[in-house]
Amino acid sequence: MKAAVITVGDELLNGQTIDTNSAWIGQELNKIGVTLTTKIAAPDLHEDIIRALEVASEKAELILMTGGLGPTKDDITKKSIADYIGDSMIFSESTYRRIEDFFKKRNRKILQAHRDQCYIPSKAQLVQNPRGTAPGMWFEHKNKIILSMPGVPGEMKAIMNTAGLDMIKKLVKDSHIKHYIIQTAGVGETTLAEAIDDIVDSFPNEVSIAYLPNIGRVKLRITAKTKTQKDAEELSQKYGQLITERVEKYVFGIGDITLSAALGQLCKAKSIKISTAESCTGGGIGNTIVSQAGSSAYYEGTIVSYSNQLKTSLLGVSTSTLNTHGAVSKQTVTEMVAGLIKLTHTDVGLAVSGIAGPGGGTPDKPVGTIWLAVGSRENIITKKLQLARDRTMNISYTITLALNELRLFIQDNF
Amino acid sequence: MKAAVITVGDELLNGQTIDTNSAWIGQELNKIGVTLTTKIAAPDLHEDIIRALEVASEKAELILMTGGLGPTKDDITKKSIADYIGDSMIFSESTYRRIEDFFKKRNRKILQAHRDQCYIPSKAQLVQNPRGTAPGMWFEHKNKIILSMPGVPGEMKAIMNTAGLDMIKKLVKDSHIKHYIIQTAGVGETTLAEAIDDIVDSFPNEVSIAYLPNIGRVKLRITAKTKTQKDAEELSQKYGQLITERVEKYVFGIGDITLSAALGQLCKAKSIKISTAESCTGGGIGNTIVSQAGSSAYYEGTIVSYSNQLKTSLLGVSTSTLNTHGAVSKQTVTEMVAGLIKLTHTDVGLAVSGIAGPGGGTPDKPVGTIWLAVGSRENIITKKLQLARDRTMNISYTITLALNELRLFIQDNF
Repeated sequence: MKAAVITVGDELLNGQTIDTNSAWIGQELNKIGVTLTTKIAAPDLHEDIIRALEVASEKAELILMTGGLGPTKDDITKKSIADYIGDSMIFSESTYRRIEDFFKKRNRKILQAHRDQCYIPSKAQLVQNPRGTAPGMWFEHKNKIILSMPGVPGEMKAIMNTAGLDMIKKLVKDSHIKHYIIQTAGVGETTLAEAIDDIVDSFPNEVSIAYLPNIGRVKLRITAKTKTQKDAEELSQKYGQLITERVEKYVFGIGDITLSAALGQLCKAKSIKISTAESCTGGGIGNTIVSQAGSSAYYEGTIVSYSNQLKTSLLGVSTSTLNTHGAVSKQTVTEMVAGLIKLTHTDVGLAVSGIAGPGGGTPDKPVGTIWLAVGSRENIITKKLQLARDRTMNISYTITLALNELRLFIQDNF
Repeated sequence: MKAAVITVGDELLNGQTIDTNSAWIGQELNKIGVTLTTKIAAPDLHEDIIRALEVASEKAELILMTGGLGPTKDDITKKSIADYIGDSMIFSESTYRRIEDFFKKRNRKILQAHRDQCYIPSKAQLVQNPRGTAPGMWFEHKNKIILSMPGVPGEMKAIMNTAGLDMIKKLVKDSHIKHYIIQTAGVGETTLAEAIDDIVDSFPNEVSIAYLPNIGRVKLRITAKTKTQKDAEELSQKYGQLITERVEKYVFGIGDITLSAALGQLCKAKSIKISTAESCTGGGIGNTIVSQAGSSAYYEGTIVSYSNQLKTSLLGVSTSTLNTHGAVSKQTVTEMVAGLIKLTHTDVGLAVSGIAGPGGGTPDKPVGTIWLAVGSRENIITKKLQLARDRTMNISYTITLALNELRLFIQDNF
């Protein structure tokens, strides 16, 4: 079954609010075999909402609307739906009683605006909203379903989870979807695409692939869309595994997992403590590691020696190394890791020093030159990156690629 | 002028990716007097992209498209545009040379997929992409403008900021817009609104205000939209300054300035060196400080003592303090700052220790309890925050509020 989402509200068009509702709806529909084929954002204008309904009905059998059901005067979704389906508004006693109850519980007074909110299209089938005053409304019109919900994410999700998704499931008959997600790092989209070209060419019609790149990482999504759940599972699994095997050296996880979560799992599985020493990333590596809840189990901390003085006094990098080779050098990051492990008593350490830009570059070491070292008491390896982006992106890439090297080192050495 | 945004990509419809591009575009267009009247999300399908173009052209004179310009085969935006405007594809030598150059700088090989990427509609006027290989494309067709850009947010923004917005500005004629931006931190939107209520009520019709909240900060944008440039400047200036005076204690800057840039300017002006000691933020404070180019002039580094062991061995927090009061306490952050200043020889230090969650909370110190201390050799002040969000948001709020306290301390004491 095909669906469309219409989001209503000026705030989504002038950039005041980022629409997260439709991504959530897309995910949930996907799980039950409904494909979202379009999303349309309409301003708080009657004719624009009606036009959005017309466009959405061209392809979709199910139209989900969010926003424009509140008591404030710019909210006109339900009147627009009524006009679109040729319906009139009636006062809903049951809605009024629920609102009365809702406000009594919170010791708040009912205002005229709340009474106005109780006028709803006569053909609406109300869908319970456990989180707020505006109920969802379900319409059947010319073989299409329209489900209108409030725009507040918590209320919309509550309506969908309580009854909406179940009502939609009953409409879905013959298509099942299953995704297989492969998470990679340290490789470009194009290189991946070439490496698996023949496998992708051999896909049956029911299987497709998407490349989702994001600063040093690429997520591969293999999707099977079939008539039975079993077929969808088998096909996505089969091609997902084929591709995973082919590009294994880049894969850090299967499914919805972040690089820092994968690193955390690895450290826990191998009972390893880690620490980091940063320079140009300024703490961004540490910040990414601790984004994972429970990271205190394996992460000791990071020393951000942004100045040379701290590189020497804390990490024991010799001044002669700094003078001879510079702060951004193989020798410096090697000494940083060695000093870091001594200082923090961890099994594995990671050190990064680089020139993020825009200043600080030289002909020998242009902006984007990054040295990183990862090692244990026995063994330190180093790697040079040559990035060519602006400061923010150079830092972001360095964080991802450094975390990936840390992961690979632990995987290979413990 | 009216505009529409079309986002292309299955990943935006099945919920794998949240669309942040169109909110950013809506904001930027708003600033130059262009109103976004609709957003349409289309899947990676030729006919859906064409239908989206048809619908978008009904109302908008300017159509901005993001996504679907990459080298992988699910990317088909440019072919769809060519068909829509009745154009054919040609090989662009200039694009190829730019890609060649881009890859040479990174010591990477050009692949067949990159060559394919150089086929573009013959009527496209290329718009430089300083961040990636796929250029923006500008089309004029039946009195409408189409600007197609890659979906990667950094690349889209780079194209818009480098040339796109300027090209659009030239299309906007008879209205002059001037903004006055006031950056505040450490105060909520509602408190600000109440404080300036009477000023906002006194605005003439040509002046409006927007509250743009963002994790611990609120940006106030005062906009004057008039028939002459001079009027716009005078009006925005007048009301901007009135409001700035009223809420001065929360203001960290005027115009497009970040908190870390404001902090940097202050440190430079007062010739002050700073360092930080972090725990729950994991390096996020340092990372934010160094996001400012040239921060090495005033920033020594950050010690992320994620474990108690490092709090003691590096920062000299006494074990008795940790045992008696715990790592998240006024006493611990005070000792952290004192130790930090000794260790790094800086004028001012900032220390943070808190419980970001989801685990680690107790009845006494629930999740979201954050202690921070900022001080010099002479004087240390402490502050307790009680946040109530999830891990990621607790960390983000702490970073902003801590940087703001650091800024205020330097402002008041030096």
